Amino acid sequence: MVTHYFCLTIIIGKLRHQILYKIMSDKYIDIDTLKYMLYDIHKLENLLDRERFVDHDKESLDMFLDSTKDFADRELFPFIKEMDERPAYHKDGKVFVHRQVETMMKKGGELGFISAPFDYDIGGMQIPLMVHTAATYILDAANNHLPGYAGLTQGAAELIIHFASKDLLEIFVPNMLSGKWGGTMCLTESQSGSSLSEIATKAIPSQNGCYKISGQKIFISGGDNQYAENIVHLVLARVEGASKGTKGISLFIVPKNRNNSDGSLSSNDVTTVADFQKMGQKGYCTTHLSFGDKEDCQGWLVGEENQGLNYMFLMMNAARIAVGRASSAIASAAYYASLQYANERPQGRKLTNNGKKNIEQSQSLIIEHPDVRRMLLLQKAVVEGSMSLVLLAAKYYDLENTAKSKEERIKYNTLLEMIIPVVKTYPSEAGAYSVNNGLQVLGGYGFCSDFILQQYYRDIRISSIYEGTTGIQSQDLLGRKITMNNGEGLKLLLAEILLTVKKANDFPELKNYADSLNQKLMLSEKVLKILMPHALKGDFEKYLADASVFMEFFSLIIVGWNWLEIAINSQESLNIKNNKYSNIFYKSKIETMKYFFDYELPKTVSQSEILMNPSSVTIKKEEEILI
Amino acid sequence: MVTHYFCLTIIIGKLRHQILYKIMSDKYIDIDTLKYMLYDIHKLENLLDRERFVDHDKESLDMFLDSTKDFADRELFPFIKEMDERPAYHKDGKVFVHRQVETMMKKGGELGFISAPFDYDIGGMQIPLMVHTAATYILDAANNHLPGYAGLTQGAAELIIHFASKDLLEIFVPNMLSGKWGGTMCLTESQSGSSLSEIATKAIPSQNGCYKISGQKIFISGGDNQYAENIVHLVLARVEGASKGTKGISLFIVPKNRNNSDGSLSSNDVTTVADFQKMGQKGYCTTHLSFGDKEDCQGWLVGEENQGLNYMFLMMNAARIAVGRASSAIASAAYYASLQYANERPQGRKLTNNGKKNIEQSQSLIIEHPDVRRMLLLQKAVVEGSMSLVLLAAKYYDLENTAKSKEERIKYNTLLEMIIPVVKTYPSEAGAYSVNNGLQVLGGYGFCSDFILQQYYRDIRISSIYEGTTGIQSQDLLGRKITMNNGEGLKLLLAEILLTVKKANDFPELKNYADSLNQKLMLSEKVLKILMPHALKGDFEKYLADASVFMEFFSLIIVGWNWLEIAINSQESLNIKNNKYSNIFYKSKIETMKYFFDYELPKTVSQSEILMNPSSVTIKKEEEILI
Repeated sequence: MVTHYFCLTIIIGKLRHQILYKIMSDKYIDIDTLKYMLYDIHKLENLLDRERFVDHDKESLDMFLDSTKDFADRELFPFIKEMDERPAYHKDGKVFVHRQVETMMKKGGELGFISAPFDYDIGGMQIPLMVHTAATYILDAANNHLPGYAGLTQGAAELIIHFASKDLLEIFVPNMLSGKWGGTMCLTESQSGSSLSEIATKAIPSQNGCYKISGQKIFISGGDNQYAENIVHLVLARVEGASKGTKGISLFIVPKNRNNSDGSLSSNDVTTVADFQKMGQKGYCTTHLSFGDKEDCQGWLVGEENQGLNYMFLMMNAARIAVGRASSAIASAAYYASLQYANERPQGRKLTNNGKKNIEQSQSLIIEHPDVRRMLLLQKAVVEGSMSLVLLAAKYYDLENTAKSKEERIKYNTLLEMIIPVVKTYPSEAGAYSVNNGLQVLGGYGFCSDFILQQYYRDIRISSIYEGTTGIQSQDLLGRKITMNNGEGLKLLLAEILLTVKKANDFPELKNYADSLNQKLMLSEKVLKILMPHALKGDFEKYLADASVFMEFFSLIIVGWNWLEIAINSQESLNIKNNKYSNIFYKSKIETMKYFFDYELPKTVSQSEILMNPSSVTIKKEEEILI
Repeated sequence: MVTHYFCLTIIIGKLRHQILYKIMSDKYIDIDTLKYMLYDIHKLENLLDRERFVDHDKESLDMFLDSTKDFADRELFPFIKEMDERPAYHKDGKVFVHRQVETMMKKGGELGFISAPFDYDIGGMQIPLMVHTAATYILDAANNHLPGYAGLTQGAAELIIHFASKDLLEIFVPNMLSGKWGGTMCLTESQSGSSLSEIATKAIPSQNGCYKISGQKIFISGGDNQYAENIVHLVLARVEGASKGTKGISLFIVPKNRNNSDGSLSSNDVTTVADFQKMGQKGYCTTHLSFGDKEDCQGWLVGEENQGLNYMFLMMNAARIAVGRASSAIASAAYYASLQYANERPQGRKLTNNGKKNIEQSQSLIIEHPDVRRMLLLQKAVVEGSMSLVLLAAKYYDLENTAKSKEERIKYNTLLEMIIPVVKTYPSEAGAYSVNNGLQVLGGYGFCSDFILQQYYRDIRISSIYEGTTGIQSQDLLGRKITMNNGEGLKLLLAEILLTVKKANDFPELKNYADSLNQKLMLSEKVLKILMPHALKGDFEKYLADASVFMEFFSLIIVGWNWLEIAINSQESLNIKNNKYSNIFYKSKIETMKYFFDYELPKTVSQSEILMNPSSVTIKKEEEILI
């Protein structure tokens, strides 16, 4: 692996000293922790008796994860700084990206990163989403600019597989799964971002069951690149005469190039008119596409007319897990980079008991200082807590999709729906906060381009925006999920959390933390009792005004639950002298849980105070005071 | 003024629409608010009877501020994006910066931006620091990459004026005040950042009272540029044989070029060996300097040997006010940019009383949505609260430095010392949080380079690092200031806050908020009663472990106090129908105070819980769990 060093030359007396700081940590993820979460916390092996997964066992899945790590070490991680320094760009209608995009797509395609979760009969490996999530977590941690190219291609293929005709599947999917063709999701238009009801891209029925497509889409990730023979766009558009709003939206396959009967490709009148240069994730191109400028853009309807948004939304849970996953992974890479710096950098001294420092002592490593440890523990708590959370969501997804009964399917679908806004949002928001603390650990160097922290700080910032902003997710959580089936979803989720509380009560070391989480559950009921009357009397503006604060509040409880579950397993392992991992491994999990409960979970007290305050200062009155 | 537009072309039907978004707001500061804080809240006019300021009146000071705004509009604001896009750079030992650096220094020098606070007899204008802070706030808000060049020159000149001999003053200061020569502060070395006791740069006495200087300094802002005939470095170094630690540090004037007897300049063996490329503030060069590579670098001692750090620290309060000021100013520019976007961008609809949206309605402007209003109010609360805070600090500085009695001088010095860590830290940390929310208001556009928010997000991030990191400031607050003179400083400050609480109690509209702040004061006493025993029994590690959390806690109380003071004045103005500003101006201040009390101040509840928790999870035990 390439190791990057930053060299500082200093002169002391007549001696010239060279100080080398590693600019990038060698480590961007702890594979032991990832496997621990998969197997020990979320019991992946229990899934493997499902018919769909019956060919897999721990050994084969470990091999898949290890080869992913190997691929990430060689092909992704060494290029992350370079991809930031040489952004993807648009020139003369073409998009140019880093050469590793080709490697990601083609070698990655060969290794199954695009096809892995799909059925055998279309070339997939039928691996659980849990395993796919873990593998992609590794890729994201290694280099968050690359996995999106494969991920969007997979998402586009999935829409075709699930909802389009077999003919269309055969035309498009095989080249997508191999990485030869790319894929995108085209939702956003300039007047239609958070509000998809405004979509104006037009589809007019034409011959052979095709539609003529015209319109523009913005913010299209992976919209084109010089290595892709073709890009298959999945486009939301409105069939001429369809009703206004989201009910009139249909989904179309609109490839950049059309297949001719002889197997060759010819242009389908899709042009990249511009790109968006961004603060971060610069290697992951973001494009502005125009369809049908020459009135020669054909689209193929997926499924039925006017069902576009429904189809898209059936894929949305996986997409939101993916954003949470990538955010947690970026925070992971940032954690190990700042941890390494803290372990190498001497600065300051321990305070003696008169509050002074003894300058005869040599300097301490900064990892000795409580304030630095606080920042590192915060990162570890966010990284591993959110890693557990995204794997839990993937587990619910797998359990839903391989359910043995309707009840089971509804149960896990409900649990997934309940946590999904948190799965998207907590890793994004807390992840950014975590990276921010990682940057601070490095002091002035954290702000310098030679060190990687500032890049992670910029890269992760998009997460709270795409796939539905934090504001939108918060409205979904409080407005839809909490009220879903008259609160039955919430009850189901709370029951799961209570099971963990009960288990933790059996461990004297964890009793306080179990009590604490239990109190938070009661606090959440209290908060909802105050909020709910607004919804019941139809004042939804007031009900949802503080939805983002509720998101923060609810997220901490959900992640606290994950941490308690981790602590139970670690305490149990210590008690029974389980040697799968070292004692210090288990102890570090328990200490990090304590950090979360002592420093993060208490924030719920203030959040609940804000939520229960009758103030309506954020609701617009007659006069505009925002001046 | 140059107005930047971002053009989006969309096609609806056959029509091509051009949507223009202003990329930059025309407004980066509200001058009315700045003057309101100066004159109405912090009573600048009461200062003008001091002998030092007797030549100034409101009219002349307003003229100074208005001409500053005019200069900033013309020479600073139009170049902010360009300075980010074309960073300062180092090549062949030279540093190249944007041409506006020359304008800032030379035209700015003519306009008095460097000399204004100094005595008449050395070419100054004897303006109060309050006014200087307000003027520089305008410059920082317009373009935070530029005022530092002048500010550091001023700081270096100030050290010479206060502590060096008259001869040295005459040699160096006039060219600095005119902007012909630049100035820097050289503290940091690669092994000596937060811990200045490690400074190793060496000074050996040589002929004519000079010293031979050798060593290297890093992170030197404004270290060189192609427009400066000379740069006057104020360098901390250790005279050969001086004691270890901070007591053996002396301060030297080390110019890049020496004056020859004929008035010409020749090299003083100071070389720029590299620069630091950074995530933000890219137009403000950061250099790595080497002194005495050819053993021909002369330094002139400032004052006495071994007093270097004392001299430097006497300037530190002004430097820390400057960081707070610049941070608040960047947050101000970000606020107006996101406010403008929110006032122009239609997206989404108001919820009807069945919780749905009516798609027959046209879309709302996003400023109508409570969640967007929350983000804007947060910004306004942070920007104006921190603006008041930095002006308060400048006022204490002025009152200290023009005190009519020793008691008065001690009083205001004490008040300044008490709040100074907060003045540096709150605008930096809350400012970054505020800009983060500003970016979020723009959704996807916030992340795009065409819009300015992402730049402010990057620029402001340095503030929590330089002039003492947040960690260092927090140790200063809890470790030194709170315990200063057995808590007498704290008592004095609390008495000032109680005066505001009392005043607010006279207004029925404000009584609840007065009560709330009063409760926070009691809460702070409770927190300190829990913490103090650790210090008293000599366990400073435990006492200071959560100093950063205490900083957040204490900052909110201090800024809450500022907001209550603002609300009192605004309520009073409404009551007596004061027409200096519009009713909506005053109302907007009161509503923003309410936001601060309803959404920010409650965070103190959680922070106090964390501070009073006996947990010592951040203190290192025998085994390292940070893995």
